[in-house]
Amino acid sequence: MPTSRLEAFSDGVIAIAITLLVLQIKIPSTGVESLRHVLLHQWPAYFSYAVSFLVIGVMWVNHHQIFSHVGRADRVVQFLNLGLLMSIAFVPFPTAVVGEFINSSSGEQTAAVLYGVCFTIIALFFNTLWQYVIRTPGILEADADPRVIRGITRSYRPGMPLYASATAIAFVSPIASVALFGAIAIFYMLSPARFGGAAG
Amino acid sequence: MPTSRLEAFSDGVIAIAITLLVLQIKIPSTGVESLRHVLLHQWPAYFSYAVSFLVIGVMWVNHHQIFSHVGRADRVVQFLNLGLLMSIAFVPFPTAVVGEFINSSSGEQTAAVLYGVCFTIIALFFNTLWQYVIRTPGILEADADPRVIRGITRSYRPGMPLYASATAIAFVSPIASVALFGAIAIFYMLSPARFGGAAG
Amino acid sequence: MPTSRLEAFSDGVIAIAITLLVLQIKIPSTGVESLRHVLLHQWPAYFSYAVSFLVIGVMWVNHHQIFSHVGRADRVVQFLNLGLLMSIAFVPFPTAVVGEFINSSSGEQTAAVLYGVCFTIIALFFNTLWQYVIRTPGILEADADPRVIRGITRSYRPGMPLYASATAIAFVSPIASVALFGAIAIFYMLSPARFGGAAG
Amino acid sequence: MPTSRLEAFSDGVIAIAITLLVLQIKIPSTGVESLRHVLLHQWPAYFSYAVSFLVIGVMWVNHHQIFSHVGRADRVVQFLNLGLLMSIAFVPFPTAVVGEFINSSSGEQTAAVLYGVCFTIIALFFNTLWQYVIRTPGILEADADPRVIRGITRSYRPGMPLYASATAIAFVSPIASVALFGAIAIFYMLSPARFGGAAG
Repeated sequence: MPTSRLEAFSDGVIAIAITLLVLQIKIPSTGVESLRHVLLHQWPAYFSYAVSFLVIGVMWVNHHQIFSHVGRADRVVQFLNLGLLMSIAFVPFPTAVVGEFINSSSGEQTAAVLYGVCFTIIALFFNTLWQYVIRTPGILEADADPRVIRGITRSYRPGMPLYASATAIAFVSPIASVALFGAIAIFYMLSPARFGGAAG
Repeated sequence: MPTSRLEAFSDGVIAIAITLLVLQIKIPSTGVESLRHVLLHQWPAYFSYAVSFLVIGVMWVNHHQIFSHVGRADRVVQFLNLGLLMSIAFVPFPTAVVGEFINSSSGEQTAAVLYGVCFTIIALFFNTLWQYVIRTPGILEADADPRVIRGITRSYRPGMPLYASATAIAFVSPIASVALFGAIAIFYMLSPARFGGAAG
Repeated sequence: MPTSRLEAFSDGVIAIAITLLVLQIKIPSTGVESLRHVLLHQWPAYFSYAVSFLVIGVMWVNHHQIFSHVGRADRVVQFLNLGLLMSIAFVPFPTAVVGEFINSSSGEQTAAVLYGVCFTIIALFFNTLWQYVIRTPGILEADADPRVIRGITRSYRPGMPLYASATAIAFVSPIASVALFGAIAIFYMLSPARFGGAAG
Repeated sequence: MPTSRLEAFSDGVIAIAITLLVLQIKIPSTGVESLRHVLLHQWPAYFSYAVSFLVIGVMWVNHHQIFSHVGRADRVVQFLNLGLLMSIAFVPFPTAVVGEFINSSSGEQTAAVLYGVCFTIIALFFNTLWQYVIRTPGILEADADPRVIRGITRSYRPGMPLYASATAIAFVSPIASVALFGAIAIFYMLSPARFGGAAG
């Protein structure tokens, strides 16, 4: 299978997942006392929307970076990529749970942990896929620059620990944990030395 | 990152956002006294559907116009584009709120302001992105025609004030405010001298 | 604007609209006495899903046929195409209404009329777009075969009356009216002389 | 119609269907006693999400395999492909029913049978399409390797019986039946000799 088709399909899934995020924001019904109050009160839904949008956006960049170096997508690459997409396409669910619970009196910790675990699993898939790509003969593009490859590998190293730590912070402050994922995504996007792993 | 891939991803997000608008229209349940009455009564939902469809459609044209002149998408372009997509993908939410509240006895003003603010933020992103594109060396395509570029820049000028004014009209007539966004989109689409900024 | 990009965007919107149809089928909740009974009882939802899927599928073929002869998409083509997409992307709504009401004791006529009117409006957009394409100098591809163009024009002629008639049948039998749209789509797909207009 | 456009449209529908699966997972509301308990309790929803994601992913690979050998898409190919897409785009519905009922005290058998029947119908469409492709003169690519074609034909043979058997197992253990579809998909993806038919 040519990687161009795999990339187009993956791009499609990621674009759809990122756009479905908005459906999880509740539409208030007429009869509420003050629409303004209700709209302001559900700020956690907008907040989790924005954070998830940023994180998935960065994952899209990341996914592209990996596949720009893949010359041949064998069975295992296809399988790991499907697992990766499965976890990215799942993001609207924890996003909605965070939007519902992050500001409530109970469940806010569980919501943030679910959120963080989901992203940590995605980071795990990114790492596994990348390790497979660089270790299996005949997968990397023939003319891949070893320095670029080493740079990406190095950039993936802080990813998993960083995501796991951000998840752990949910036990101290659920909201800080969610915000941290957004901050990591922004830092990643604007940082000159992109550290891929942290962003997925 | 080649701009072709950025454009394809952006096109995907915009196409999905525009098509998700329909999901926010409520399906009446059996047991209503008169289906015809219920269907006619929820005209604001069809109205906001049509207006948002037109406005997002124009934004898609606009987005294409900008990126047809971008030769290289650096980190900042990617970041600003992600912010732009985040605000466009958000449109189904204010559209649904307008559909629910624009004809109700309370909340109609808040709904229209939310709607207008959302589009004004999108216009702000379009402007910021365009200003960055033309002011940063090495971003514009090498063979970009300066007259065309100046023409686009000029066309963006009335955008923000026009959108802000349309939003302000919500305090006088919420429904006129929403209708105005549709009128601006139609005018933009059919006008010989496209004024990009107003349409996003 | 190159037509290739317009076509890609339109394909995206049509593919999304056709796939969103499934979301309108209600998921029964645990606690129902017999799941089998509930699933069988909501056959109108599957029926309207299948009919709309076929009709939108044919519209996609139709859309492609038109744009394969368009050499230049001017402002009016873009505007008419946006109106066409707006009406196609609306289809999930009448589909859901038909699925809910076609087998109920009241509202079944209104549902079928809504359904038929929606498709008749789409056919109107197809006709208007095609008439504009063939009558405006410089829109058709330079090497378009006049016989092929005449053939398409002829094939569009029965479309609007056929759709309007199928809609009118809703006053006699709502369910027959909906079924007729499906039959027209199947006939169109398998007929050697495609009559475009009827299918959109 | 060039097959490239048919493939792009089909890819779009499949990518959307696979990404819509997540919408069927219920978002708990604040006020539940324990969010953790509610989230763990709805494990069948995650389970059916994962299985359907894998199966649709394999179907995508399968669809690509067929069309990489199709040189010309005639009317019947287009019609069968539309039927195939209609059944794949339907998958989110049985997936949601399984997620709701597979662990409940009643309806779990019906849910699993619905799920299996849906996939068996998809396999039927895949088989019919492939048989039509290889038996109709002028459909296969001129330079198609007969050994490859025979290999695919052979690989399709166990598909329908395997899917029908997995469905029948629902009468013994609904959950095992659903799990089996996931196992078949994983086996298919990682097996050296891909047996197309079983995977769709």
